[in-house]
Amino acid sequence: MAKRIVVALGGNAIVTKTGTAASQQESIKKTMTALAEFIKAGDELVITHGNGPQVGNLLLQQAAGSTEKNPAMPLDTVGAMTQGEIGFWMENALDAVLIENNISKLVATVVSQTVVAADDPRFANPSKPIGPFYTKEEAEAIKSENPDFTLIEDAGRGYRRVVPSPKPIDIVEASIVETLLKNNMVPIACGGGGVPVIKTDNGYKGVEAVIDKDFSAAKLAEKVHADELIILTAVDNACINFNTPEQRALGEVKVDEMQSYIEEGQFAAGSMLPKVQAAISFVENHPEGRAIITSLDKVSDLVAGKPGVGTIITK
Amino acid sequence: MAKRIVVALGGNAIVTKTGTAASQQESIKKTMTALAEFIKAGDELVITHGNGPQVGNLLLQQAAGSTEKNPAMPLDTVGAMTQGEIGFWMENALDAVLIENNISKLVATVVSQTVVAADDPRFANPSKPIGPFYTKEEAEAIKSENPDFTLIEDAGRGYRRVVPSPKPIDIVEASIVETLLKNNMVPIACGGGGVPVIKTDNGYKGVEAVIDKDFSAAKLAEKVHADELIILTAVDNACINFNTPEQRALGEVKVDEMQSYIEEGQFAAGSMLPKVQAAISFVENHPEGRAIITSLDKVSDLVAGKPGVGTIITK
Repeated sequence: MAKRIVVALGGNAIVTKTGTAASQQESIKKTMTALAEFIKAGDELVITHGNGPQVGNLLLQQAAGSTEKNPAMPLDTVGAMTQGEIGFWMENALDAVLIENNISKLVATVVSQTVVAADDPRFANPSKPIGPFYTKEEAEAIKSENPDFTLIEDAGRGYRRVVPSPKPIDIVEASIVETLLKNNMVPIACGGGGVPVIKTDNGYKGVEAVIDKDFSAAKLAEKVHADELIILTAVDNACINFNTPEQRALGEVKVDEMQSYIEEGQFAAGSMLPKVQAAISFVENHPEGRAIITSLDKVSDLVAGKPGVGTIITK
Repeated sequence: MAKRIVVALGGNAIVTKTGTAASQQESIKKTMTALAEFIKAGDELVITHGNGPQVGNLLLQQAAGSTEKNPAMPLDTVGAMTQGEIGFWMENALDAVLIENNISKLVATVVSQTVVAADDPRFANPSKPIGPFYTKEEAEAIKSENPDFTLIEDAGRGYRRVVPSPKPIDIVEASIVETLLKNNMVPIACGGGGVPVIKTDNGYKGVEAVIDKDFSAAKLAEKVHADELIILTAVDNACINFNTPEQRALGEVKVDEMQSYIEEGQFAAGSMLPKVQAAISFVENHPEGRAIITSLDKVSDLVAGKPGVGTIITK
C-alpha cells in the first residue's frame, strides 16, 4: 500500500572528500537513485536534509571575504543559501533519475522556515559550534563588535562561535509541502533543519541558531501526517551496548522501551541520541506513524518490505 | 476582476547602500508592502526577482575564501544560493505583511531551473561580466586552470570573467508554480533568472551562464498563462527620445509599434531594451496577455485601475 514518507538525509548522503560541487552532486545522484525506489513503489516522498558541511564551508568563505561593502551574512541567511544550493543539487539529480525511469513527477525545493519558541531554554545555553576557528585576540574583537555572540575555547584548537539549537515547534511551509504531495510532486523541504524563526506580532523573525535536521524532519512528518519518518544515517540500526561484546542492533521497539535505553545512556549525544529522540518525538505527536532509523543501503530492502530492516519505533 | 499576475522585480527593489542583510530585508519589506496591494485586490501573484548585486557579492566572497578543501562553487550553484537567500528574505517579509493585513495566504519560494537551448548562439559570445576583477597575471592563471573560461579586459579596471546570457525556452518548475497559484499560495520563483540548465538525455545540466530575469519572468508568465507580466523598474514608463527635449513616455503600445521603436534604437541596451524585449516576447507567445513596464511607486495606481499608468504592451 502506498505510504506517505518523510526522509531525513544526513551529511553522509551529500558530503565528499573534495568538497567540489561536481563531487557533491555525484554523491547526491547516488542518494536520489536510492530514494527513487520509494517513488517507483508508489509512495509519496518528502525529502529533508542536513547542511552541516555546506553551511560550515560557506561561513568560512563569507568570513574570509567579508568587507565593509560586502559584509558576511548572518546565520539565518547563510542557512537559506544552503537550502538553495543543496535543494538545486537534489532537485536536479532527482529530476534526472525520474526522467531515466520514465516517471512523470515534478520535484520542488521549498525554502523553509522552522518555528522555535522565543523562550526555549536552549537559547540560554548555546552549544553548537559554527564557522571558523579564531585566535584569542580575534575572538575578543568579534565579541566586542557582537556583544550577543558566545565564543568558547574548543579543546586547544582555538576559539569558536557557538549558537543555540532550539527545538522546532512548527514548520511555516508545512501546508505548502502537503499541497505539493497532493498534486503528485516530490517536495524537498526543511533543508539544514530550516531557517530558525520565532513568531512575533509582525510575522516570523530569523534567529541566530541552528536546528537539528532530524527534529525538523520529525515536526514536518507530524504536520503532513506522514505514515513514516525515515532517518537515514551511516549505520543500519540503532544499537544498545554499542562497541561492546554485548552490542545488539535494535529492531522493532516501542517508545517506552526506547526511553529506558535513553535513560541508561545507550545512545551517544550528538550522534545516535538526537536521531532516537527525533524518532520518538514524531511517534509521540503522531501515534499512527512509525519512525525508522537505518542506512541508505537498506532502502531497497525497506521498499521491498523485507522483515528485520532498520530500527523501527512505534508508539 | 481578479487577474493572474507575474511581477519581475529589479535590483532596485532589494539593493541598499550598506549591503547588510538587515538593510536589504528592510528594503524588501517595503517592496512586499507595495506588492501586497495586488493580493488585497484578490489577484493571483507570482514574484520573480533579479540577483545581480547579491550574486556579485557572493562570488567575491567565494573567490576570497576559496581553498583546496573548500573550493568556490560554480556559477549555477552560487545562483541557487542567492535564490535561497533572497527567497527567504522575500517570503519572510511577505509573510509579515500578509499577517499584518489578516490575509491567510502562504508564500512559497521554489528553487527554479530555467531551460536554455544548448545551441543558443549566445553561448558563442559570452558578454556578461561576473565576479571579481583580476590582474593580467591572475587572469592568465585562471584561464590556464579553466580553459573554457572567457576573461576580458574591462575598460582599464582589470580583467573580468564574462559568461553568456542565453534566452530561456522553458521553466522546469512552471507547473509547480501553477499548482501553488491554484491552491491560493504566492509563489516566489525564477530568482536571479533561475539556474540556467540545458536539457540532456539524462535530465537537466547546470551551465555557466546568467539569464536575464525579465526574460525568465516572461517565459514563466507565458507558461502559467498569466493575464499580466509586470516589469517593475526605476522609471514609471518606457520613453522614446529619452533624455532629449522630445522625450515622450509611452502609454498603451502595440507590439508592432514597440518593434519599430527598437529598430530606431530608442531603448538603451542593458537597460530598457531587454525589458521591452521581454515584454514583447511574453505578448507574442501569449497574445491574450499584456505586459506592463512601470515603477514600484505606481503599483497602487495600477491596482486601483487608474488610467495612464505605465507602459502597456499588447499584441
